[in-house]
Amino acid sequence: MVARTAQFMDGIRKEIASSGGRSAVILADCTDQASLEKGLSEALGHVSAEMPLQAVVYNAAARIESPFLKLTSKHLETSYKLNQLAPWLILQRTLPIMEKQGFGSVLVTGATASIRGNANFTAFASTKGALRAFCQSLAKEMGPRGVHVAHFIIDGGVANSRIRHVRKDIPWDKLGASMDPESIADEYWHVHKQHFSSWTFEIDLRPFSEKF
Amino acid sequence: MVARTAQFMDGIRKEIASSGGRSAVILADCTDQASLEKGLSEALGHVSAEMPLQAVVYNAAARIESPFLKLTSKHLETSYKLNQLAPWLILQRTLPIMEKQGFGSVLVTGATASIRGNANFTAFASTKGALRAFCQSLAKEMGPRGVHVAHFIIDGGVANSRIRHVRKDIPWDKLGASMDPESIADEYWHVHKQHFSSWTFEIDLRPFSEKF
Amino acid sequence: MVARTAQFMDGIRKEIASSGGRSAVILADCTDQASLEKGLSEALGHVSAEMPLQAVVYNAAARIESPFLKLTSKHLETSYKLNQLAPWLILQRTLPIMEKQGFGSVLVTGATASIRGNANFTAFASTKGALRAFCQSLAKEMGPRGVHVAHFIIDGGVANSRIRHVRKDIPWDKLGASMDPESIADEYWHVHKQHFSSWTFEIDLRPFSEKF
Amino acid sequence: MVARTAQFMDGIRKEIASSGGRSAVILADCTDQASLEKGLSEALGHVSAEMPLQAVVYNAAARIESPFLKLTSKHLETSYKLNQLAPWLILQRTLPIMEKQGFGSVLVTGATASIRGNANFTAFASTKGALRAFCQSLAKEMGPRGVHVAHFIIDGGVANSRIRHVRKDIPWDKLGASMDPESIADEYWHVHKQHFSSWTFEIDLRPFSEKF
Repeated sequence: MVARTAQFMDGIRKEIASSGGRSAVILADCTDQASLEKGLSEALGHVSAEMPLQAVVYNAAARIESPFLKLTSKHLETSYKLNQLAPWLILQRTLPIMEKQGFGSVLVTGATASIRGNANFTAFASTKGALRAFCQSLAKEMGPRGVHVAHFIIDGGVANSRIRHVRKDIPWDKLGASMDPESIADEYWHVHKQHFSSWTFEIDLRPFSEKF
Repeated sequence: MVARTAQFMDGIRKEIASSGGRSAVILADCTDQASLEKGLSEALGHVSAEMPLQAVVYNAAARIESPFLKLTSKHLETSYKLNQLAPWLILQRTLPIMEKQGFGSVLVTGATASIRGNANFTAFASTKGALRAFCQSLAKEMGPRGVHVAHFIIDGGVANSRIRHVRKDIPWDKLGASMDPESIADEYWHVHKQHFSSWTFEIDLRPFSEKF
Repeated sequence: MVARTAQFMDGIRKEIASSGGRSAVILADCTDQASLEKGLSEALGHVSAEMPLQAVVYNAAARIESPFLKLTSKHLETSYKLNQLAPWLILQRTLPIMEKQGFGSVLVTGATASIRGNANFTAFASTKGALRAFCQSLAKEMGPRGVHVAHFIIDGGVANSRIRHVRKDIPWDKLGASMDPESIADEYWHVHKQHFSSWTFEIDLRPFSEKF
Repeated sequence: MVARTAQFMDGIRKEIASSGGRSAVILADCTDQASLEKGLSEALGHVSAEMPLQAVVYNAAARIESPFLKLTSKHLETSYKLNQLAPWLILQRTLPIMEKQGFGSVLVTGATASIRGNANFTAFASTKGALRAFCQSLAKEMGPRGVHVAHFIIDGGVANSRIRHVRKDIPWDKLGASMDPESIADEYWHVHKQHFSSWTFEIDLRPFSEKF
């Protein structure tokens, strides 16, 4: 697990440990190439013949909503680094390993903006659209070599995991139209485990009550 | 299970029975409205408070590939009945039940032609495109009432189940680029069981080696 | 010009005549196959070596907005006849002529619903989606034979021509977000006249102020 | 007219002059921010109340076709600068002027890769997809303010203008499936002149014989 701060990951690490799993928390900032390369090297140090690289999940994101003329090229640059350059760098390092293994999943998180540009979303929609097209190109390129690239359109708000833990008494349909993070995780897991004769490139996910 | 001839369904019925399940085979022709209505009535006779209507799966299809000027309006009419009128009639009867229940899944099979018209596919692409748009409209309409409508883009040849049973010794990746019917069924089952906070409207499925 | 009633066409016929043009008004109902076939025969009687078949424009439409469970199969059938069967029948008769000529344009009117199914638009979105896929298949099939098939996404309300004639004093931008029928006609004319090395299959048109 | 080298533009400048028009050639490299900013300042020096900013046409491009694992982040960076950052910078400078004027057109050149990622097109498809989404967002944002943003999908090879000038005796349909640059220019001109009640966001253009 890669994140910018350890604090955020502590709860998840403990949860994994308590259910008998193992995990490593690696600190890196996806918008900083040096930091990212260092984190990647650390992460790939855990990969071995006994513990192959099963999957890469990329879900870093930063949603910018603003009129175009109130943005600067700095906003575009940050979005580019997060949504385009970081996944590019990560996959330049990890795909050769997966290709050699002959298997592996690349699971990438998109949004509604990945398929539609809307007013005030120039930076977000363009870089998320780029990420989707990048994944589509890669899926076609890597599929025949046994590597599964999939893109998830998350079309809805995701419930804060803190709310979820604090208020387990409230059923999901009473929490409104937000998405249960665990149900999203189930979907990523499912796609990762798909039989190779029925692979998905793209799947959309939204709460039952979402307008779309 | 609804089919035109009992013979085709006998093997599946026995397979279900041998694993402790129950099933009913109903004979109906989806291009014949009277036959379809009769079959529907028979099928819905099995629905009760104890055995609610969990899911409707529609995967009847007839792929016509021919230059437009060699087709007649008869070809369009048959495609229309199979891909548009039959699902319409079936859902007119079943959605009120699901709406009253507050749950239920409608799982519909599409093809690559559902999202792209190609030369020599006027009849198939137009009616499959219609089926997709119909499902999309319905998904938006019925979702907030608890009924899940999903559309599957099956982008690849499906292996004949007979080959699969006869040659269990041959691994799937050696059978070529065809799709394992059981792996497709797993995907339908998965979407049917999705948590209501993460519902899919559309998912594409293809063999790992498929060009797309 | 084909319409259900002569009255509607009289003004247009006079306008054409007053500017030195010639036109014929043919009465036919696109949802009635016999009436349509008769109208087609009459229209094609005007085609000759001196007056070849330059273009077919199809813009009949009937927008149905209603919850699915309040519709009957009758609504689907009418939409099918208007949006799918009628263009099919018309093109079965006219494309062989254009193919023999080696030129000709087929200009078809779509709507936003042609590319997106929304709640309460099951009948309209499915049959308009079918019409679009039909056109796309045909465009790919007929283009190399010199026949140009194009699909127009009209995404906005069209100003009633009566308003336009009565209130020539009001500038268009004061009439609100509606589309000027003459500006739409200009677009069809433009696509009809496109150089064969730069043909359009699809073009969207909307008022400058339209939200999309 | 902005280009990297004067030589390329000389012929066009003379052609414009010989038909009574005026033009200025500005040297700038779109992948070099300082060079671009300098060129922009020079170009905008020509804008005045008498000569308002009618249109910005962006058609710089560099098509990279290569397996992902043979590319480096340098390829992505160059594509990003050309297809994303340069148009962003140009429009940050020019849209405020158009917004103040209350009119102006932004005409942007895309490719098939703008709407579909294919194998070996990771850099090109992602950045062209980004450019399209950027334009779509902008079109929605600027349209109601009177500024028309349009995106052209050029789906075919463009005939080298030199061939065109040298071999005027060869009719276009004998030059094969390539696009006549003048016919493309006609399309840009047409969209620029569209009535504001019928604006196009996206139009595709291809030779009559193109497979798509």
